Amino acid sequence: MKFEAEKKVVVEAPGTIANLVCGFDVLGLCLHTPHDTMELKLIEEKKVIIRSSDKYSLPTEPSQNTAGAPLLEILQEVDAAFGFELLIHKNIMPGSGLGSSAASAAGAVVAANHLLGNIFNKNDQVRFAMSGEKVATGVKHADNVAPCIFGGITLIRSIFPLDIISIPAPQLYVTVIHPQIEVKTSDARQILRKEVLLKDAIRQWGNIAGLVAGLMKNDYELIGRSLEDVIIEPIRSILIPGFDEVKKNCKNAGALGGGISGSGPSIFMLSKSRETAEAIEKEMQMIYQRIGLAHYTYVTTLNMDGVKILNQA
Amino acid sequence: MKFEAEKKVVVEAPGTIANLVCGFDVLGLCLHTPHDTMELKLIEEKKVIIRSSDKYSLPTEPSQNTAGAPLLEILQEVDAAFGFELLIHKNIMPGSGLGSSAASAAGAVVAANHLLGNIFNKNDQVRFAMSGEKVATGVKHADNVAPCIFGGITLIRSIFPLDIISIPAPQLYVTVIHPQIEVKTSDARQILRKEVLLKDAIRQWGNIAGLVAGLMKNDYELIGRSLEDVIIEPIRSILIPGFDEVKKNCKNAGALGGGISGSGPSIFMLSKSRETAEAIEKEMQMIYQRIGLAHYTYVTTLNMDGVKILNQA
Repeated sequence: MKFEAEKKVVVEAPGTIANLVCGFDVLGLCLHTPHDTMELKLIEEKKVIIRSSDKYSLPTEPSQNTAGAPLLEILQEVDAAFGFELLIHKNIMPGSGLGSSAASAAGAVVAANHLLGNIFNKNDQVRFAMSGEKVATGVKHADNVAPCIFGGITLIRSIFPLDIISIPAPQLYVTVIHPQIEVKTSDARQILRKEVLLKDAIRQWGNIAGLVAGLMKNDYELIGRSLEDVIIEPIRSILIPGFDEVKKNCKNAGALGGGISGSGPSIFMLSKSRETAEAIEKEMQMIYQRIGLAHYTYVTTLNMDGVKILNQA
Repeated sequence: MKFEAEKKVVVEAPGTIANLVCGFDVLGLCLHTPHDTMELKLIEEKKVIIRSSDKYSLPTEPSQNTAGAPLLEILQEVDAAFGFELLIHKNIMPGSGLGSSAASAAGAVVAANHLLGNIFNKNDQVRFAMSGEKVATGVKHADNVAPCIFGGITLIRSIFPLDIISIPAPQLYVTVIHPQIEVKTSDARQILRKEVLLKDAIRQWGNIAGLVAGLMKNDYELIGRSLEDVIIEPIRSILIPGFDEVKKNCKNAGALGGGISGSGPSIFMLSKSRETAEAIEKEMQMIYQRIGLAHYTYVTTLNMDGVKILNQA
């Protein structure tokens, strides 16, 4: 593929919630807020330049960068006679459990695909973005990049071969609190048991089946009843101070349900209305103020579109 | 409740498939064939009389009979000054894995509810029928009685409290083979491990989520990809001679997928068309003829109505 002219695009790459309660490792959800903004342009030289406007000191060596690695792969794939220059404005904090690395990877891929004339389908785009996740976490997983690219709620039925299913869903409000503690994904994974009780697994697959049916039937009550995780949450929530109280008080305040976002430390709750979502935000803030832990909160909605093309030149 | 007049009803109580592949213990499906026919009438004396026209020598003492136990409970519940007389024509062979006891229980309950003026909702009817299952298996389970009463495909998200969800589904043809061997439910349960690998459980809940989504989206390809059981089938299929070959050949002949019906020994396969379902029947018959095992086969469709009221007097 030849370099034709200097083209540029700006995209908004949203945060995502992986490990959606009973959907550990398979269900993810796309948010409107927080989101990164990224500016990608074609350059004449075949290379990838990463620039970053944030304070997080992420690696800018392309092969070590979550956005850089997939861009290098794309250049390879299209046998390019040009390169990419990417400027990242990061708002999704790394380590928040809100898909920060996925947003970088997915945003870069969607932007590149746009500049190349939309030559890749969404599954291909997820595949490229997964190499970004590999840089960030050591594993090619799609839990965050799939909802980031497809929007809405996605099911990763299988990774090899990749099988991504969009799950239709009704309007949902999402309240997120990000307490300022560090939970390493590797720690969060290490404390999980390799074996689980069959009876717990049965309860979990009853719940995920109920959740998918509830989402597709617009049945909020059923969604609420199905938002139960008897396998991962009881173990991982130990790493998040205040988790049980947040969950209990938010459900009392009208939340349908919720849980740990990704591998934490962020906690999210789903609601039917903005009023409830805002009441829940106050409950969360009160608890962490009392605990004395700094935190950020977001009240947002399910983002049906995923990475958004803002403008181009 | 008083006895008013001699009333009578005839119902057709269908066979059902529990443990629907990746939906072990939670997903069931209602068939058109085989089905029992049952005749229930009100009698003046407060008691339950069970008569049976079959060769299976099932207990006729009401409290020990799968249909009798729920009828006794109903008489108790409505404080009846009358009784029931039930005649059962059983076509669903006990021990086939096709919900024979559930058909007796569900048929009796739906017939009684009809004679009493439809005073119980479907959830109540399932609850009564579950006491019939308790007589038959020692456990109050709803895997067969729920699809038998609701029709279609049902998800039992939870037993306590009872939470039954109807899963919409497209037209499906079902081919069933019942090889004439005995698999005791207790044996089939005993060989299961109490613990399973987390990675297998994750694959299973990815599949059940995919199956529910595929059914609700009328996506036959997705239904087919999701019909995979990595936990129960690899263990239980050992008890069924020819299972692996049946499954392989049927999928080659166009089946979407399938597995063990209930705890066996029947095997079922789902197809998109009657032609495929009939071709699959021939594959199944050929295999069991070669093995030298007597068998019955059925080619039928998903029954959306459940127990059917035939006529009344």
